[in-house]
Amino acid sequence: MRALISVSDKSGVENFAKELVSLGYEIISTGGTYNKLKEAGIAVIEANEVTKFPECFEGRVKTLNPYIHGGILHRRDKESHLDQAKELGVEGIDLVCVNLYPFKATIEKTDDFEEIIENIDIGGPAMVRSAAKNFDSVIIVTDVADYDVVLNNLKNDTNTVEFRRDMMIKAYEHTAAYDSMIANYMNKRFNGGMGAKQFIVGEKVFDTRYGENPHQKGALYEFDKHLSDKFITVKGEASFNNMGDISGAAKIAANFGDDNAVCIVKHGNPCGFAIKDTLFESYTEALKCDPVSAFGGVVAVNGVVDGELAKKMNEIFLEVVFAADFTEDAIEEFNKKKRLKLFKQGTQKLDLANDPFNFKIVDGGFVYQDSDVVGEDEVKNAELKTTREAREQEKKDMEIAVKVAAGTKSNCVVYVKDSAVVAIGMGMTSRVDAAKAALRKAEDMGIDVSGSVLASEAFFPFRDSIDAAAEAGVKCVIEPGGSVRDDEVIDAANEHGMALYFTGVRHFLH
Amino acid sequence: MRALISVSDKSGVENFAKELVSLGYEIISTGGTYNKLKEAGIAVIEANEVTKFPECFEGRVKTLNPYIHGGILHRRDKESHLDQAKELGVEGIDLVCVNLYPFKATIEKTDDFEEIIENIDIGGPAMVRSAAKNFDSVIIVTDVADYDVVLNNLKNDTNTVEFRRDMMIKAYEHTAAYDSMIANYMNKRFNGGMGAKQFIVGEKVFDTRYGENPHQKGALYEFDKHLSDKFITVKGEASFNNMGDISGAAKIAANFGDDNAVCIVKHGNPCGFAIKDTLFESYTEALKCDPVSAFGGVVAVNGVVDGELAKKMNEIFLEVVFAADFTEDAIEEFNKKKRLKLFKQGTQKLDLANDPFNFKIVDGGFVYQDSDVVGEDEVKNAELKTTREAREQEKKDMEIAVKVAAGTKSNCVVYVKDSAVVAIGMGMTSRVDAAKAALRKAEDMGIDVSGSVLASEAFFPFRDSIDAAAEAGVKCVIEPGGSVRDDEVIDAANEHGMALYFTGVRHFLH
Repeated sequence: MRALISVSDKSGVENFAKELVSLGYEIISTGGTYNKLKEAGIAVIEANEVTKFPECFEGRVKTLNPYIHGGILHRRDKESHLDQAKELGVEGIDLVCVNLYPFKATIEKTDDFEEIIENIDIGGPAMVRSAAKNFDSVIIVTDVADYDVVLNNLKNDTNTVEFRRDMMIKAYEHTAAYDSMIANYMNKRFNGGMGAKQFIVGEKVFDTRYGENPHQKGALYEFDKHLSDKFITVKGEASFNNMGDISGAAKIAANFGDDNAVCIVKHGNPCGFAIKDTLFESYTEALKCDPVSAFGGVVAVNGVVDGELAKKMNEIFLEVVFAADFTEDAIEEFNKKKRLKLFKQGTQKLDLANDPFNFKIVDGGFVYQDSDVVGEDEVKNAELKTTREAREQEKKDMEIAVKVAAGTKSNCVVYVKDSAVVAIGMGMTSRVDAAKAALRKAEDMGIDVSGSVLASEAFFPFRDSIDAAAEAGVKCVIEPGGSVRDDEVIDAANEHGMALYFTGVRHFLH
Repeated sequence: MRALISVSDKSGVENFAKELVSLGYEIISTGGTYNKLKEAGIAVIEANEVTKFPECFEGRVKTLNPYIHGGILHRRDKESHLDQAKELGVEGIDLVCVNLYPFKATIEKTDDFEEIIENIDIGGPAMVRSAAKNFDSVIIVTDVADYDVVLNNLKNDTNTVEFRRDMMIKAYEHTAAYDSMIANYMNKRFNGGMGAKQFIVGEKVFDTRYGENPHQKGALYEFDKHLSDKFITVKGEASFNNMGDISGAAKIAANFGDDNAVCIVKHGNPCGFAIKDTLFESYTEALKCDPVSAFGGVVAVNGVVDGELAKKMNEIFLEVVFAADFTEDAIEEFNKKKRLKLFKQGTQKLDLANDPFNFKIVDGGFVYQDSDVVGEDEVKNAELKTTREAREQEKKDMEIAVKVAAGTKSNCVVYVKDSAVVAIGMGMTSRVDAAKAALRKAEDMGIDVSGSVLASEAFFPFRDSIDAAAEAGVKCVIEPGGSVRDDEVIDAANEHGMALYFTGVRHFLH
């Protein structure tokens, strides 16, 4: 039996090779791997002894050779193949252990195009793909983490075709991800990120119990290990829908630097948000906005939840608390609630991936775009359109209202007072309906919205929402502007003695 | 100069080779391509003359050879490479024209695993990747559609490095898509579609003017050519947000077989829907539900729009009409409206892709799932929970209400009367809020919802929504059931003399 080992990531390779030797394998190797194994005292055959051809062009051609690929690819179940192998002097290669040139590490550390091109592996993927194709007879190992399971299967006579098939699938995933990364990189570099083909590649974090609904199968996939590193389950099991809600809530809560922001989300939309001096106060205020919706909701906390806050949260049924971290007291407290789920990042403040792009499926394809971000100075630089100016607290409230609105499904309006959302209308087909529904609900709940700031994620097409806001006591409005009837809206604000600001930036979210 | 041609799709290859010969290229080829070119009277060198090794193992190893890959990969700008090439007898290959074994066609026509494995191309991708890596000196051609542009560039001395770089990007897109397809196929076959890696690969249909908002770049990507074939622009330019709305509206309108369904959508949610004897009547009724939201809306029509319907549609400002087709009269009529956009499928009834999966980005990754479908007998088999039964028209209305609710963002409630939606509440964080908002709006608009059927995409947690519906004259309710308070809900329905059905199937949509 012969094993070909040629790895870029050399961790654990000596031991793996040693064990293979003790199992009766001859080892074939190239370049750096050959040297490393030889230094470790392992009997190893240099690839060019097999290929009968020298390694050439500074290593560009080493294993692209019929003695290597024939050795991997010939079928052991066909006499004709075995005969031809014998005739040609092609000896079988039964295990191929290859991982690829570090293209990703290269593009992360340099913009030098020549170096980047040199780090596109050619020989490696060819061997990986050959060995995977012939998984019926060959084990393909592409992951350092699989060395032990491979050795165990060889030692325990459990090197089954099913095992080799799993390794084959992993191998094609490896080469597909590698070339997807190259194509995406090139399209980012030369085609503004919108190339002729777009590759969205995710690595599975876990299967969800089901999808959006129980009759749908679902799973969570991650980019660049972000969720493996930063989504730690403390208690319970995250559902498909939890993931969407957690993401929505966390994006809003993490959007205010180190502030003690707390956001409550239900069905993808915020129903409570506040920034106060302490997380306890923030949560308390956030909950007041809509405690009915908060029932069964998802809370994101930009900070560490302590026992006191946990106790407060336990007063109602929450489905999920997602936080930078929890104190031991908090976990003890939360353990009293059976159905509550807890997830943390293991940080002091929320640390999101903030992916630079996003996408949405449509029938027959998907739309892909840069992510939307509220600019740092967007609210600060908003243009005053009325006689009255915003006061200091109103300025803070505008910042909050704009950022919460950007994280809420269109059409939406957000009313903020003293750094807390006091009313919110969302996801409706008409803006004035959203505005009115929010005010009616606040009224039903006995919430006084007078003195609050109103933000809309897109322009107000008519003065109706402004009139309704004025009647409820709103004194300050911020919106992108850009309607053909902006003048009508400005007039309405002036009539009511309101301050009105235009940001010039729309934040639709669908 | 030498060109290596080895193609699975042989269309146009003779002419391409002939032209290359007339430009001074020697042609190297393998197998079927070699035979085809030779028969066409083109001077062609068989690959094994170059490789000094026979094609072997039934074609599994043909070009995996240092004379081929060295010929492609050695750098022409380095003396040391050129010297080594000379010394080893490696002659340069300056153009590589390869397209791959038809893995996709194979998996579409057979389940035979041996045949499928045999159709994983090994030599082809290796040459494509080699040539792409050395694009500085080598042209890589992977698409039959590029033959003309390649020849033109060679003839007009415009074979620039930028051109070859574009071909390089296309080449890595080609190999990435190929291995993504293999990995996804294997994961579908052996891992229930939820493999360790998930590859979502789209081909660009067009850049949108911008993304969800003007400061975001955006593009539309398709699977399997569906949108290239079935999304035909008649007038105007589809925006990023249009695509989402069209998809949402079309999915609802196409969900009732050949019925004359018309759906109006705004911001991703329906604000009108009806099925009547004619499309004209369906649109007229659909519009009545919420003409305010319909302003600037997107209409999907399951059929061919004629001049009469177009005239009716022109009475208000619509942003998009998407239909199976338009008559010439209709287009003439629509041309009177400058801002209206028209898209069609060129069919008699809507013919959607109905992708079997969908996905949604979350911070740091995405969730992936089977698509949600309302089962054919889901409403028919719904369980009656009350004394009163649904009448015939109510049964039709239930079917409509359930399917519209499944296409509306959660939490939602849909009221249907005489095969038309008369009120709808959606996207809200509380179900009773959605129910009440819908009824209030209907009241404001003078719509009589008495006698309508109410559907909810998920269970009613309390009796409050039922009580509100009864007060508005609703006589029949359908919902999944499954609340701990189902009995309370059933009692309420009985008290009000309503019919109540449980489907047992939830249809959350976020």
